[in-house]
Amino acid sequence: MTIKDRNMADRMDLPFVGLVSFAGQAACEDWNQLDGADVAILGVPIDTASSYRVGTRFGPRAIREASMFHSFGTDGVFDFEDETTYLSAEDVRIVDAGDSDVIYADTKRSLANATTAVRALLDAGTMPFILGGDHSITMATVAAYSDEQPIHIIHIDAHFDFIDERNGISWGHGSPMRRSSEMAHVSGITTLAPRNMASVSRKDYQAAKAYGTHVVPLRRLRDQGATASLAHLPSGQRVYVSIDIDAFDPSIAPGTATISHGGLSYYEGKDILREIAQRFHVVGADFVEVSPPYDPSGVTSLLAARLALDFLGAIYHGG
Amino acid sequence: MTIKDRNMADRMDLPFVGLVSFAGQAACEDWNQLDGADVAILGVPIDTASSYRVGTRFGPRAIREASMFHSFGTDGVFDFEDETTYLSAEDVRIVDAGDSDVIYADTKRSLANATTAVRALLDAGTMPFILGGDHSITMATVAAYSDEQPIHIIHIDAHFDFIDERNGISWGHGSPMRRSSEMAHVSGITTLAPRNMASVSRKDYQAAKAYGTHVVPLRRLRDQGATASLAHLPSGQRVYVSIDIDAFDPSIAPGTATISHGGLSYYEGKDILREIAQRFHVVGADFVEVSPPYDPSGVTSLLAARLALDFLGAIYHGG
Amino acid sequence: MTIKDRNMADRMDLPFVGLVSFAGQAACEDWNQLDGADVAILGVPIDTASSYRVGTRFGPRAIREASMFHSFGTDGVFDFEDETTYLSAEDVRIVDAGDSDVIYADTKRSLANATTAVRALLDAGTMPFILGGDHSITMATVAAYSDEQPIHIIHIDAHFDFIDERNGISWGHGSPMRRSSEMAHVSGITTLAPRNMASVSRKDYQAAKAYGTHVVPLRRLRDQGATASLAHLPSGQRVYVSIDIDAFDPSIAPGTATISHGGLSYYEGKDILREIAQRFHVVGADFVEVSPPYDPSGVTSLLAARLALDFLGAIYHGG
Amino acid sequence: MTIKDRNMADRMDLPFVGLVSFAGQAACEDWNQLDGADVAILGVPIDTASSYRVGTRFGPRAIREASMFHSFGTDGVFDFEDETTYLSAEDVRIVDAGDSDVIYADTKRSLANATTAVRALLDAGTMPFILGGDHSITMATVAAYSDEQPIHIIHIDAHFDFIDERNGISWGHGSPMRRSSEMAHVSGITTLAPRNMASVSRKDYQAAKAYGTHVVPLRRLRDQGATASLAHLPSGQRVYVSIDIDAFDPSIAPGTATISHGGLSYYEGKDILREIAQRFHVVGADFVEVSPPYDPSGVTSLLAARLALDFLGAIYHGG
Amino acid sequence: MTIKDRNMADRMDLPFVGLVSFAGQAACEDWNQLDGADVAILGVPIDTASSYRVGTRFGPRAIREASMFHSFGTDGVFDFEDETTYLSAEDVRIVDAGDSDVIYADTKRSLANATTAVRALLDAGTMPFILGGDHSITMATVAAYSDEQPIHIIHIDAHFDFIDERNGISWGHGSPMRRSSEMAHVSGITTLAPRNMASVSRKDYQAAKAYGTHVVPLRRLRDQGATASLAHLPSGQRVYVSIDIDAFDPSIAPGTATISHGGLSYYEGKDILREIAQRFHVVGADFVEVSPPYDPSGVTSLLAARLALDFLGAIYHGG
Amino acid sequence: MTIKDRNMADRMDLPFVGLVSFAGQAACEDWNQLDGADVAILGVPIDTASSYRVGTRFGPRAIREASMFHSFGTDGVFDFEDETTYLSAEDVRIVDAGDSDVIYADTKRSLANATTAVRALLDAGTMPFILGGDHSITMATVAAYSDEQPIHIIHIDAHFDFIDERNGISWGHGSPMRRSSEMAHVSGITTLAPRNMASVSRKDYQAAKAYGTHVVPLRRLRDQGATASLAHLPSGQRVYVSIDIDAFDPSIAPGTATISHGGLSYYEGKDILREIAQRFHVVGADFVEVSPPYDPSGVTSLLAARLALDFLGAIYHGG
Repeated sequence: MTIKDRNMADRMDLPFVGLVSFAGQAACEDWNQLDGADVAILGVPIDTASSYRVGTRFGPRAIREASMFHSFGTDGVFDFEDETTYLSAEDVRIVDAGDSDVIYADTKRSLANATTAVRALLDAGTMPFILGGDHSITMATVAAYSDEQPIHIIHIDAHFDFIDERNGISWGHGSPMRRSSEMAHVSGITTLAPRNMASVSRKDYQAAKAYGTHVVPLRRLRDQGATASLAHLPSGQRVYVSIDIDAFDPSIAPGTATISHGGLSYYEGKDILREIAQRFHVVGADFVEVSPPYDPSGVTSLLAARLALDFLGAIYHGG
Repeated sequence: MTIKDRNMADRMDLPFVGLVSFAGQAACEDWNQLDGADVAILGVPIDTASSYRVGTRFGPRAIREASMFHSFGTDGVFDFEDETTYLSAEDVRIVDAGDSDVIYADTKRSLANATTAVRALLDAGTMPFILGGDHSITMATVAAYSDEQPIHIIHIDAHFDFIDERNGISWGHGSPMRRSSEMAHVSGITTLAPRNMASVSRKDYQAAKAYGTHVVPLRRLRDQGATASLAHLPSGQRVYVSIDIDAFDPSIAPGTATISHGGLSYYEGKDILREIAQRFHVVGADFVEVSPPYDPSGVTSLLAARLALDFLGAIYHGG
Repeated sequence: MTIKDRNMADRMDLPFVGLVSFAGQAACEDWNQLDGADVAILGVPIDTASSYRVGTRFGPRAIREASMFHSFGTDGVFDFEDETTYLSAEDVRIVDAGDSDVIYADTKRSLANATTAVRALLDAGTMPFILGGDHSITMATVAAYSDEQPIHIIHIDAHFDFIDERNGISWGHGSPMRRSSEMAHVSGITTLAPRNMASVSRKDYQAAKAYGTHVVPLRRLRDQGATASLAHLPSGQRVYVSIDIDAFDPSIAPGTATISHGGLSYYEGKDILREIAQRFHVVGADFVEVSPPYDPSGVTSLLAARLALDFLGAIYHGG
Repeated sequence: MTIKDRNMADRMDLPFVGLVSFAGQAACEDWNQLDGADVAILGVPIDTASSYRVGTRFGPRAIREASMFHSFGTDGVFDFEDETTYLSAEDVRIVDAGDSDVIYADTKRSLANATTAVRALLDAGTMPFILGGDHSITMATVAAYSDEQPIHIIHIDAHFDFIDERNGISWGHGSPMRRSSEMAHVSGITTLAPRNMASVSRKDYQAAKAYGTHVVPLRRLRDQGATASLAHLPSGQRVYVSIDIDAFDPSIAPGTATISHGGLSYYEGKDILREIAQRFHVVGADFVEVSPPYDPSGVTSLLAARLALDFLGAIYHGG
Repeated sequence: MTIKDRNMADRMDLPFVGLVSFAGQAACEDWNQLDGADVAILGVPIDTASSYRVGTRFGPRAIREASMFHSFGTDGVFDFEDETTYLSAEDVRIVDAGDSDVIYADTKRSLANATTAVRALLDAGTMPFILGGDHSITMATVAAYSDEQPIHIIHIDAHFDFIDERNGISWGHGSPMRRSSEMAHVSGITTLAPRNMASVSRKDYQAAKAYGTHVVPLRRLRDQGATASLAHLPSGQRVYVSIDIDAFDPSIAPGTATISHGGLSYYEGKDILREIAQRFHVVGADFVEVSPPYDPSGVTSLLAARLALDFLGAIYHGG
Repeated sequence: MTIKDRNMADRMDLPFVGLVSFAGQAACEDWNQLDGADVAILGVPIDTASSYRVGTRFGPRAIREASMFHSFGTDGVFDFEDETTYLSAEDVRIVDAGDSDVIYADTKRSLANATTAVRALLDAGTMPFILGGDHSITMATVAAYSDEQPIHIIHIDAHFDFIDERNGISWGHGSPMRRSSEMAHVSGITTLAPRNMASVSRKDYQAAKAYGTHVVPLRRLRDQGATASLAHLPSGQRVYVSIDIDAFDPSIAPGTATISHGGLSYYEGKDILREIAQRFHVVGADFVEVSPPYDPSGVTSLLAARLALDFLGAIYHGG
């Protein structure tokens, strides 16, 4: 005699139904069980290193909630423009690993936790796909790759984030690229889309030049396109991609800490990410600086979720 | 002895003054009195067929309220770019016919009412100009033309809306084009501006192709322009135009149910509508999926109102 | 052979359906046609006399929109607590007369128009029930009664509104009671619910006392109740009632120009209005200072609409 | 050799950290695994039966998110006023069972699913604690108890919800008590806190009286307190408790579909729930009509989450 | 020959006009020039010690902006209820001293700065009146009194704030009273208005009792009133008053980090502050936890500004 | 013996810290002390001449608050794209002169005050940089140059603002260019970026043509660029620049009174301002029509602040 199955058969699971995980993928907050997944989504809800607006601690939750609109099952997602299905179960297995722990009122210990968490994901053989949090987290997540092969950082941002220190603070959200540049396993940095006065100080700009940062300002990027903007990197390059949502125009990304007018459109961003996915070996990525309290219509969270899926689809298709 | 006239002479009637009707045009909720009008504005405030966000039931009211900013009198509206006056009393007589009735908790009966309402407007010899509501309403409004000459549907949308059924539901807001394609009086469908993964499933895409839907993806539309995108249709074609506000970019249309980044700009939309107005015979139109609760600054409602007037001006000028 | 009736039979007309008028009552913007109505709703959307926040020009529209939630038909509205039906067609005929015209950038002419408009309503034999607008409008609406029998003003407000002039301006929203006190047909003023420092200056307070304003501060009103607070007026007194929504607590009325914490609850307000309706002869009323831009959840507009209907129900029941 | 544990020891798990489940309790969306839990949280995100505002489909998610602020571990929650710890692991084991599935554009099938889901929870031996959704869901959740011992419904609401049908619709959000009254296993209904005109029609009121609904209007409830208001029920009575958030004052519950001014305070609600928990046998409960789009500061969701925990703490302490 | 005076004579300086300082009082950001002032307003915009919502770094600015609505000149503010003028130039000279500096991403150094800043104000002979910021700042501001005569802290809050440490952090916003209790110059603590489960853990509660904290829970405070609640302190007691805006009900204070339903009304708060002002010697005060991003209508900032002026008026009148 | 300096050394003064002035520059509300400054920021918070939305009275404050994000010290602001530092103390000394006084309920006297205020700034030898307020203020600020050498007005706007009068009002926010055209010291007007139907009436358009206004519609401006659009003016031309924020697209400027879809992008605006700064002699400028109540994410205020600094940097660099 069989036991009655209590679960509902043939659920629709519309985007507003059910517990939230990234794109409706399996939750796996026990990191000892991650093995076998290709990608692990990790939230790092730190926002205490911001120099202006805060609220990015609620970024991982808001991006997850928005991503439910794009939730998908084992059949993947169809793109009619190239008549191709992405993100099928054969292409990639994504799990949501929950969040790195945050120690309140102590940014440095919270950042150390982020390093530990990313190492756990790497140890499990997954690619970390990280949701911030403010941009300080990248100095911690990149640090987790210290035992891996060298990586180049592709940094998409309205700002250089190359501050050495201010008033003794070297771990603010304006410093992740400076800190990364000091790490032995970081072989170089490409900064795409910075713009406008005050995106970097003269002193920090000179330090970035001295380091060898490859810079493509926003308007040059717009003129020459994604391919030319990344032509300096060899195919197959191991890259870590750090995406500050403020690289995008405030018209589609108002929910962020330090707004810079004149930024990327959705398609400009999508084309960059596709170029990266097709030419390089992506070993990790982060999406930072989404601040839900300043995003009344949710367009910023939706943008981050949409681009994350575009990027993952491009990375893993045929992979 | 004459009776004193109590009304104020020479009213300014600024946009924030007075009872609301579409663009300040005459209200006519008694459909037996519609005869003589060229265009009848009809609200269809149904939002129970949406798969994600709701609130489009308040769309007709919000668009009307926004349209008061563009209210005009018998002299029409001047366009300095072509030194022409549109929407004068000689060009066109517009009335606001109020709303189709909605039966709560019963989408199908509400949709049936919409069909009945549009038939009343057609019976009166007016062109129905319909304000949604979610996109399910189009299967009902198009159905009302079953006794008319065949029509081609020009469908402007981020999505294909060609879902056959999900879990037994064939009347969701993702199905209006599928349902329309099954109607004898619909001679064909052109879908403009769909984009991005998940705008259609592989199965539904193949069905649309099998039906013969003419598809112009967003980026192709942007590259080739409005004229080329509609060149496949003969001049004078009888068309019904269904405009989902999510065809537009969320930067100018955040107030909608299912946001898709990377959409049309105002001028791209305006150029399409002008091309339609100048080359084809428009027998009806709808503007759907405006959701006021997600539109804190009112830009979405204003966009719908502005484009509606642009469209009506282009249709009726010299008509 | 009968002509087909195009209108829908047995409409539900849910609160979100149809063109907006106060509580869904008949619109009558042609004031020559008002005769026969008992009450005429009149919007006076002036907000250029405010000393702080503005936006009250959108007050009449927002209150009307909220009132649609309480729309009713000829059968009236049932109150189970006293098992009585109010606002039936036998009790009272209410029409929505639209708005007084506003002359932008000229507060004084706009106020003069308000006087003219109220006179038109009085000329038609209706009771004016006025929706503001900032409180300056009351000096204009009260002035319209100059050819009527004397009236006492019951003024419900967080402030005294008894400013003589500031920098030569005598028609600001802080002066309506001062201006009214100077009118021959105003026999007296009762101010209910003022409170807190800065609700009146010493000089204006002394002027109010010299005039004979009967003042019941908020906490005394709360302690002694509505009946005691109005015991100084004889039954049958002809009264005009001016209600500033800032008399109510900001917890239920955040959408107003000059917030004063510690105000009336809904039931305190309702009890005052019921006492007024039962003991006095109400010849006009206004509800002012609702500012929709500061009312994100719409509770302020709903409060004004709800109290307006409570008040009208109490006035006309058995009347 | 031991394997390294990848998980972080001694996590703080602050309220903004981690995947969301009700109060941070274990998620269990596989209903075959529910056995052993005392309480199962179930979302029923249906909002297509609402007569006015919608958005309650996002209610379960918002309440869960807010409840994370009150998340707790195995040690429970301390209340200093009675120096007692509630909700410890010994007292009660709560799991979050996710949501009942929703069939879009078909309210009746969605409601049928809710019945099925609650039966699954009952089959597992848990007490269903349900998060709506609009109030129509209660006719479905109560129906799930048809094989159980009779229950009395304690219904806390601004309205009677005793509508028989409107335009042929008998399953709207104004009808759950009427439908429940027709069920054999419902032995009676107590309606607490209804108020104001239009909370019930004369016809429906007479039907409620004929049925024997015990009614305690808001102001009487306020005057006599919780104990007297429930004195008519015998101790130990099996009760199902249905709480419409619009029973509470809009000052603390603006985020709801059909606002009614003058409602319950937090402590009034808490006292009622404590009285119920202490005197009766609670076999199920629902919290309905929380609409996040109208709740900009999140106070409504927080109120529902807070009261749910107060109620569960009171039910299970010493149980 | 006289030089023309370029300044405008007889300015109205309405609340929306001019640069912002607290209540329009003189700005004095050079702390060497503070001497002669009675009260110095000091912002401490730290929010990195919060366990949940943030944004309180914008609290000082929002309170100042709101206070402009209550700006006053040398004549002070009239209160008609006791026919008295408060806050005249003879009573008290208030200056706005700007903000303590914040070191981003380093809560401890930011707190150390707050101590330094308050010492500067004390050195100038002014009474510090401090605007937060999250509640962690109080451990810093109280520390600044270490060279002064002993002080008793009157702490008005929904929570005990008596956490010793969590995960090694002893300077979170839940710990200011614990830290203060350890300071030699703090002679005792009275905590008013805590409430509800989770306002304190059992362990911390026992520590507070061991220390001798005098606790008056919200409902007891409501029952017995302000005078009885403070009767345990001798008249003339030197007190520092720390007011967490979450002591107030979320209906009037939604804009805060950790909302607790069921809190103080405006008048309850005002009565407590008046009792304190009249019976004790106030040597400093802070208003903390106002978070503007969660305060869409500005009522929370207005509440803080209003109560601050009520308090200052009561302290200095006749002083 | 030296006195202890109470001020904090080496302050970070993050954007959220300290009292607000434009870009953190020195406040100087005593206009007798302005001499020596190059630029004086002046707010003119008038919004009573608006024909639709209001709230621009809060524009100056919101722009100042946003500008704090771009605050800078004596070293100026670095632009990496041209490796140049702008806005250093050697380039330019900017002071914030506070606001012109506003006479409530009297637009004409408030405008007269604006003329007086700008004259005070000119008298001090500063360049007035004015923050509105609605666009009516420009007729007042331009009038202040009547004793100066002739000026050409470069007017950037979605509308012509060339209304002669409406209902006797000649000082509305639609008339500043008409009034300016009548002033002897105004040698001509260039209107950039008007667009769409209803931006000007036929009558007013003909008047503008008769006057000789040089008009560059939005789409022509977009096609031909900034340089060609200003080629008709000789280098070195004395210009006053009036920028209506509604010239910009609502996607980046939703917070304004009269939205017009299809407007300028940030870079289009920046290029125009740079061209003006490099070729002409700018003697004054205004930024008008920013309405904070419609700008929930603050992007509009940030846009105005950012462009103001771009413009000032371009004007004064090497000047």
